[in-house]
Amino acid sequence: MTLALSIDDTASCIGPQPDIALAMRLFDELRVRTGGPRGITRASYGLGEQIAHDIVRREARRLGLECRIDAGCNLFMTLRGQRPGPAIFIGSHLDSVPMGGNYDGAAGVVAGLAVVAGYRAAGVVPPRDVTVMAIRAEESTWFSASYIGSRAAFGQLACAELDTVLRTGDQVALGHAIDAAGGDTELLRKGIGLNPAQVATFIEPHIEQGPVLVACDCPVGIVTGIRGSFRFRQAVCHGVYAHSGATPREHRHDAVMAVARLTVRLEDAWTRLAGQGHDLTVTFGQVATDLSEAAFSKVAGRVDFAIDIRSQSDETLDLMRAELRLAVTAAETSHRVRFDLGRETGSEPALMDLKAISDLAEIAETQGIEAEVMACGAGHDAAVFAQMGVPTAMLFIRNRNGSHNPNEAMEIEDFAAAARILSAFCLRDTGHRP
Amino acid sequence: MTLALSIDDTASCIGPQPDIALAMRLFDELRVRTGGPRGITRASYGLGEQIAHDIVRREARRLGLECRIDAGCNLFMTLRGQRPGPAIFIGSHLDSVPMGGNYDGAAGVVAGLAVVAGYRAAGVVPPRDVTVMAIRAEESTWFSASYIGSRAAFGQLACAELDTVLRTGDQVALGHAIDAAGGDTELLRKGIGLNPAQVATFIEPHIEQGPVLVACDCPVGIVTGIRGSFRFRQAVCHGVYAHSGATPREHRHDAVMAVARLTVRLEDAWTRLAGQGHDLTVTFGQVATDLSEAAFSKVAGRVDFAIDIRSQSDETLDLMRAELRLAVTAAETSHRVRFDLGRETGSEPALMDLKAISDLAEIAETQGIEAEVMACGAGHDAAVFAQMGVPTAMLFIRNRNGSHNPNEAMEIEDFAAAARILSAFCLRDTGHRP
Repeated sequence: MTLALSIDDTASCIGPQPDIALAMRLFDELRVRTGGPRGITRASYGLGEQIAHDIVRREARRLGLECRIDAGCNLFMTLRGQRPGPAIFIGSHLDSVPMGGNYDGAAGVVAGLAVVAGYRAAGVVPPRDVTVMAIRAEESTWFSASYIGSRAAFGQLACAELDTVLRTGDQVALGHAIDAAGGDTELLRKGIGLNPAQVATFIEPHIEQGPVLVACDCPVGIVTGIRGSFRFRQAVCHGVYAHSGATPREHRHDAVMAVARLTVRLEDAWTRLAGQGHDLTVTFGQVATDLSEAAFSKVAGRVDFAIDIRSQSDETLDLMRAELRLAVTAAETSHRVRFDLGRETGSEPALMDLKAISDLAEIAETQGIEAEVMACGAGHDAAVFAQMGVPTAMLFIRNRNGSHNPNEAMEIEDFAAAARILSAFCLRDTGHRP
Repeated sequence: MTLALSIDDTASCIGPQPDIALAMRLFDELRVRTGGPRGITRASYGLGEQIAHDIVRREARRLGLECRIDAGCNLFMTLRGQRPGPAIFIGSHLDSVPMGGNYDGAAGVVAGLAVVAGYRAAGVVPPRDVTVMAIRAEESTWFSASYIGSRAAFGQLACAELDTVLRTGDQVALGHAIDAAGGDTELLRKGIGLNPAQVATFIEPHIEQGPVLVACDCPVGIVTGIRGSFRFRQAVCHGVYAHSGATPREHRHDAVMAVARLTVRLEDAWTRLAGQGHDLTVTFGQVATDLSEAAFSKVAGRVDFAIDIRSQSDETLDLMRAELRLAVTAAETSHRVRFDLGRETGSEPALMDLKAISDLAEIAETQGIEAEVMACGAGHDAAVFAQMGVPTAMLFIRNRNGSHNPNEAMEIEDFAAAARILSAFCLRDTGHRP
């Protein structure tokens, strides 16, 4: 017997339950088959990632899903809905950093399968197609490029990237790695890919990589937007080395003092803008005087440092760009130094779909699940979908100890809470792109 | 014929002229015999220093000076004056840093010989004995201890230093190096040495190691005091590494931001105290996040840094110690980090003799030589003499490019100006300890 559920049904009854036992088996298998002495390793377009794709595809076939692999080796596993048209996508990536954790990325794909398995077990046919998408190559540690898999899905990879971006370690070119994994770079070079209009909503479940959900004691988070950033990864302040005791202040060109002023001024701007409601983070993650030339008894003649500024708002990033320029000029004047910030890199902010945010919040409330509405500071494939014009959402799952390390710690109860929200979300017939 | 000159004579006539030709010959010989492919190297109690001592002793003998070597191998070259009693000492060191410059230290000894040679040439007998002192082992780069030679002269070396302090490179113990150079560590261990009452005034001519005289266009400087210091050479700020985008401000323990606040606060205190007339320098010469753990996209969990604070005044150093404690507490609170400043090292300030300062200034003015009255920020043997209660003075000679490098650049005209002041100073019968 097949049940056709609408939003009214899910609000009035518990509805189909995601298959958490399946999820636990999949997590175990992923851990065993892609784990090593320390953490798990699933290289982009490499062995570990392929094993993970093979595992989820096998499971999708068992569930009777239609499986398709695109030219970028992304895997689409579709449960047909009551009528044709744009599908709801549940997706995330299956690669990992070296010696990373088992849940970063994989939890989103497994959550999608658990939801669909729950529909199958309950005999529920969702209003529209639900596609679980296993995305390739999200971790830029392997190819020094962001969102390779999701950009490939839309035919958005540049030919130059395919030819010149090499994988850390074995130095295999990206295009070669894609072909070796069974992809089709000829198609990618032609820019052929998924039509954004085919995606009703893209939702990415993902473990939280920060401490917010642990701190506010919520199992899940509903993301308002993915912060964009601007970065100066190799900034330099040039001063002049001088005797620390024999050089009066007016003769100093002190690179340490100048960078300290810059740092404090940007932190003050953060305080000010945050007080005005701006979403913002300001990080100077690396600061260093020269190993060979600097000494405790010398005024520092050089400081190398890195700036990483993130916000959900382009306007806020622009305000901070302006603040940085002012701070540089002020420190150059006050401390008689010269800044060379180097090349600016970064990414565009991506706002999540407002209707999806409010639907997710409403579902969580209906189900009695505490959900924090919050910004996302790390990059995710969801940003690509949002930038392609797809209504996009992210659901965070509480996680201790950050990610990109073997100590990440997601509780299966929190995962189950997210899957229940997801399950109800995909059964809603409204709020998605028609 | 022998002339006995008093202060009235020097004020009314040019007086005996220092032997600058001799000085130039000595500088040349020192450069040739202790120089290498890059700069000159005169290791403390090593070959280069011994060659330098042999050169000046030979010259002293030619000039008919009485030569004596003490248990620490310091060389005393005395021109007898008109009457017995405490002698005026002109002294500095003859060792150098590895690949250093030819004038750092040596200029003071050579200036003493040039002055005395001038007296001999003019047949002038000074009112009291004038002793040119060539001091050993001033550069702490060799034995990691300050003022070894001048402390040895007063019998102030600790036995433990003789046994445990090793020379950088060949690891020879200090005591062994002193004995090998012809010293007598048995005497040094007994603490027997020069009686400070035997020294009427100690004056150390030395090239300036900072940029002050070049900037103010003065050939010489008259030092008011040698700055003491307190230092934390291995301070650490402990924070917590975290994702730069995913960690909200209230969850951060940002070691870079905390150290930047501390730095800026101490610089602000410097501004405030300098405005109140305090002599002070504040230097953070080394600052570094961890090479392996820090990343541009991580909040920094650790910063290592060094603080060097100097002043002529103990009171000012105490004020800055208090300011540092307050700044540490404030940054620990505001940024949820922990500071471990490590061991405090440093030195006591040494004020120069006020009468000597005014006499030197008066002589310079009489001779039409522009002299800057200024603090000395680097350590010098003169500090030991001042701390032993000897009326002490320092005369700086203009020098470009700092010291401790082969590019130091002293003009012989500036050296001659200093020698002329020195010559007149030693002929004054007043102002010295009777």
